[in-house]
Amino acid sequence: MSTATTMNSPRWDAKTLAGWSEPHLANVESALSRWVGVDAPVLLGDAMRYAVLDGGKRLRPLLVLAASEAVGGNVAAALRAACATELIHAYSLVHDDLPCMDNDVLRRGKPTVHVKFGEADALLAGDALQALAFELLTPEGDEISPATQATLCRLLARAAGSQGMAGGQAIDLASVGIALDEAQLREMHRLKTGALLQGSVEMGAACGPVSATALDALRGYGAAIGLAFQVVDDILDVTADSQTLGKTAGKDAAADKPTYVSLLGLDGARAQARQLLADALAALDRSGLADTAALRALAHMVVDRDR
Amino acid sequence: MSTATTMNSPRWDAKTLAGWSEPHLANVESALSRWVGVDAPVLLGDAMRYAVLDGGKRLRPLLVLAASEAVGGNVAAALRAACATELIHAYSLVHDDLPCMDNDVLRRGKPTVHVKFGEADALLAGDALQALAFELLTPEGDEISPATQATLCRLLARAAGSQGMAGGQAIDLASVGIALDEAQLREMHRLKTGALLQGSVEMGAACGPVSATALDALRGYGAAIGLAFQVVDDILDVTADSQTLGKTAGKDAAADKPTYVSLLGLDGARAQARQLLADALAALDRSGLADTAALRALAHMVVDRDR
Repeated sequence: MSTATTMNSPRWDAKTLAGWSEPHLANVESALSRWVGVDAPVLLGDAMRYAVLDGGKRLRPLLVLAASEAVGGNVAAALRAACATELIHAYSLVHDDLPCMDNDVLRRGKPTVHVKFGEADALLAGDALQALAFELLTPEGDEISPATQATLCRLLARAAGSQGMAGGQAIDLASVGIALDEAQLREMHRLKTGALLQGSVEMGAACGPVSATALDALRGYGAAIGLAFQVVDDILDVTADSQTLGKTAGKDAAADKPTYVSLLGLDGARAQARQLLADALAALDRSGLADTAALRALAHMVVDRDR
Repeated sequence: MSTATTMNSPRWDAKTLAGWSEPHLANVESALSRWVGVDAPVLLGDAMRYAVLDGGKRLRPLLVLAASEAVGGNVAAALRAACATELIHAYSLVHDDLPCMDNDVLRRGKPTVHVKFGEADALLAGDALQALAFELLTPEGDEISPATQATLCRLLARAAGSQGMAGGQAIDLASVGIALDEAQLREMHRLKTGALLQGSVEMGAACGPVSATALDALRGYGAAIGLAFQVVDDILDVTADSQTLGKTAGKDAAADKPTYVSLLGLDGARAQARQLLADALAALDRSGLADTAALRALAHMVVDRDR
């Protein structure tokens, strides 16, 4: 809270965001390292840790932590929720990279999990990471109230499941080579990428007391940056090289997948991203929350990132 | 409760068990049909429903419901927990059947999910079923207390994850062609099959008030029948034909996998199963619970089944 409060400018620059996020990222990395795959059978534990540790922007954890700070949330709950969202994200990447899905060999600049550990252990590592996410949310003891635990599980399950991330991936699978219009493309991404990003914001909000007005505004913020994230992903798939991205660039175009760039053109997609950023910031303005500086900065980061 | 109480004989026969389980099975099937894949994108929803509906013995749901009845548990919570355990079981079968795992084409007498829907949708259907299990456990409203919801999520996550089912599958993977001793084989199965069966009993117990003594006894019961289930599976893999089993018989021997039969011989494995049944019943005797008739009958069913 205090770090963010002292930097409550209307718009953070990248350096200021780094100052806020650095200790949070250190906490998240440390917690993930303590919690992921430690008591698992050897190869499975190794595959789980490889999939999760030392990589990734940790955008979802940062959204959880920023939203929790905005509502004065339970710090222990927020850290667990932050890690849980990252585990769901990491498992989805492991499964998405498998030969029967995208068949990708490079992720975050390293061999993908199935290249390194084999397909069977990659499959199981993904499965175990999903279970671990819910285990992290439900610790014994009284540090986190049962009501918060149950709400966090509900939000994460919905964000991850058939009406969230997994559902979006299924629509994505079915849409290769199909001419989607913008509404259909938006719906696919709202589920595939947006649901977990929005869910991260809602999970952060669930760590503290939050008014209906603020929750509604935070949902709007989450929906806007969720979609913005995908629009920017589509832009980067065209404009960035594989080394900068840490994954194979240009693969959507190669697979004849519909993207915001193929639908709106590069300039249109960029305009869309700016509009969504404006929508996200407007949502924060109407939240009534005093300290939304970190959430603002993260919205800028989502749109201005180069990987 | 009442159905079981009127049949509180020390040992039920199969016909009596059917009388108890029939309405419960109807409730479970009806609930699964209402809850699984209904609002999912079309192909994904179809694959989820195909994986779950109209098949399987529903042993895990019956264990949840019997344990819940034994402690006078919340009926709504028990039904959701029952369905959640079956979703985890069903997802594990879908993933286990994939080409990169057991590469099985027949399950419950039907083509496996990936044969019918393709590998990618099978993978996603399994992932979505796991998420749905946790969604079922965390409904909004006040029918099930947050404390019960959180406990059920905790028990299920542990039973399903790297120190439960997924961990056991990883050990299984790594053990093909390796000479395991009985302790190692027992540990593998304690995780791979036992954890979710024992977890089902514990989840049922978590639906009601339960003393420490009773909970400890129910855990012992769950551990014994969890292991017994696998011993009997190994026996049936040798003695039954594929048509009766509804899946490919003899595949463990063909894969040179260690089993209780390969380790103890057929007679030794049968003796082991009888001993575990006795252990399970003895645990119920020391539980102090008045109505354990259904749990007793299920223990017999686990050991005496022919498929």
